[in-house]
Amino acid sequence: MSIVTVGTVAFDSIETPRGKADRVIGGACTYISWSASYFTDDIKLVSIVGEDFPSSELKELEGRGVDLEGLEIVKGGKSFYWSGRYHDNMNQRDTLVTELNVLADFDPTLPHSYKNADYVMLGNLTPEIQLQVINQMEKKPKLIVMDTMNFWMDIAWDSLIETVKHVDVITINDEEARQLSGEFSLVNAAAKIHTMGPRYVVIKKGEHGALLFGDGKIFSAPALPLAEVYDPTGAGDTFAGGFIGYLASQDEINFDNMKRAIIYGSAMASFCVEEFSINKLKSLDKDQIDARVQKFIEISRVEI
Amino acid sequence: MSIVTVGTVAFDSIETPRGKADRVIGGACTYISWSASYFTDDIKLVSIVGEDFPSSELKELEGRGVDLEGLEIVKGGKSFYWSGRYHDNMNQRDTLVTELNVLADFDPTLPHSYKNADYVMLGNLTPEIQLQVINQMEKKPKLIVMDTMNFWMDIAWDSLIETVKHVDVITINDEEARQLSGEFSLVNAAAKIHTMGPRYVVIKKGEHGALLFGDGKIFSAPALPLAEVYDPTGAGDTFAGGFIGYLASQDEINFDNMKRAIIYGSAMASFCVEEFSINKLKSLDKDQIDARVQKFIEISRVEI
Repeated sequence: MSIVTVGTVAFDSIETPRGKADRVIGGACTYISWSASYFTDDIKLVSIVGEDFPSSELKELEGRGVDLEGLEIVKGGKSFYWSGRYHDNMNQRDTLVTELNVLADFDPTLPHSYKNADYVMLGNLTPEIQLQVINQMEKKPKLIVMDTMNFWMDIAWDSLIETVKHVDVITINDEEARQLSGEFSLVNAAAKIHTMGPRYVVIKKGEHGALLFGDGKIFSAPALPLAEVYDPTGAGDTFAGGFIGYLASQDEINFDNMKRAIIYGSAMASFCVEEFSINKLKSLDKDQIDARVQKFIEISRVEI
Repeated sequence: MSIVTVGTVAFDSIETPRGKADRVIGGACTYISWSASYFTDDIKLVSIVGEDFPSSELKELEGRGVDLEGLEIVKGGKSFYWSGRYHDNMNQRDTLVTELNVLADFDPTLPHSYKNADYVMLGNLTPEIQLQVINQMEKKPKLIVMDTMNFWMDIAWDSLIETVKHVDVITINDEEARQLSGEFSLVNAAAKIHTMGPRYVVIKKGEHGALLFGDGKIFSAPALPLAEVYDPTGAGDTFAGGFIGYLASQDEINFDNMKRAIIYGSAMASFCVEEFSINKLKSLDKDQIDARVQKFIEISRVEI
């Protein structure tokens, strides 16, 4: 099944307690696409870059089944650039530089061939653009997944709320769920968010795993305790890519598949953080992913 | 199987965002004993109270199979008193008052009938007293579980390290595991703590569940997402009581039973926070506990 995915394709400079990486490949849509490419070879990317973005990287994406018809390459333009430094706990980071560059004028027009895709992954981006993508779909997609963050709640509340109305799944962290709902308890937060649109609420808790709320049920997914985390950048996007990739590969929306999608997404994210940038995501194979998924199953299995 | 348990029996005054409770029954050993009493009727309590502690409460404990021969009642003395206020997130609290009272002179001598118990639960208390209890056991217990906290790492490091050498299981939270080991990653922290003594390391993460490390394996236990938490006081002690109570009832130490013990402990703790003090713990029955345990199993079950 085809997946339309929108988000940034960009450069990152990253400092973590484990090391530094200067002007490496980044962007939500990059991580999503690489991650999802292990589950489907029919990904339709929507993004914008400058002429500075390496064509070799784009070719690699095409080689993974990523359609770049929806990628605008701005002549003479510079790609979105983000630079950040992580604290010792890796859960907090300071943004050092944000250069929007070509992203400032991003006004995506979906290619005709994108408009009947069954799955839509709205990567973390302004909610206006996320909605613009939804509105250009001709056929109602089987599933629209929206990733977002507190930043958009702070500066674009109204359009965020409008976009949330149209999505089936929202993926946010626990603090964002509290901010979006005004409820402290995550049970109450998810209940409130259901009334705002999404049938499924996925709450990402980083090293504490994830929670899924929907269909009157709850699923608590573990995180895999890791000896070393090199770079958390893109972990949430990679989760989203594995999540929607798995769902598209199964093509049946129900709570059990949602649970499995969270495990696959978590497994992909656990690879992502093992190296800087998308390096680890480029070198995986199906066996490694399946083995990692089984680790998640093993560490949470208990029978009474 | 009999359990020797040491810790405070006390009064608490508590303020949470959900309400207030003034001079209610508290203390690590109280919570541990009530919680464990649903799994065994052979609990040998070691603690100290003043004459102000209600005899009706003691009778109730005896009615649950708790032997009070090891409880010193100091004539004219006042029981340990703690008062605290929780922040909105319930994860942080401020101590308002700590009155040691009779606890200042606590120097436990184990009754003869306690000295051959198979299980020992060292509730959160000075590590010196925890070690004193271990040293008075005549037969090597099958399992010694130690609960402790950052406070003792701050003020009694050397005796804490000495006590840790003698225990089979340590239960601490994630920040404490980091402090005790000097390692940030919990995988590395647990590996280090194993070398300090404990075969099993249980890391309590409150609303994020718990991790068990031991025998070269990892288990990630979910927390039950709750709509409302009334009072987190005693949740860790209640966890410990359910944990060791279950293990004593099974009387076989292995990783699978440890996993189940964590689920039982977590289930008991999830009841504890539903009301102030030990109120909820007094009103349970086996069916309720089994049903709650099944909820923990259900929310974490996934098959791939």
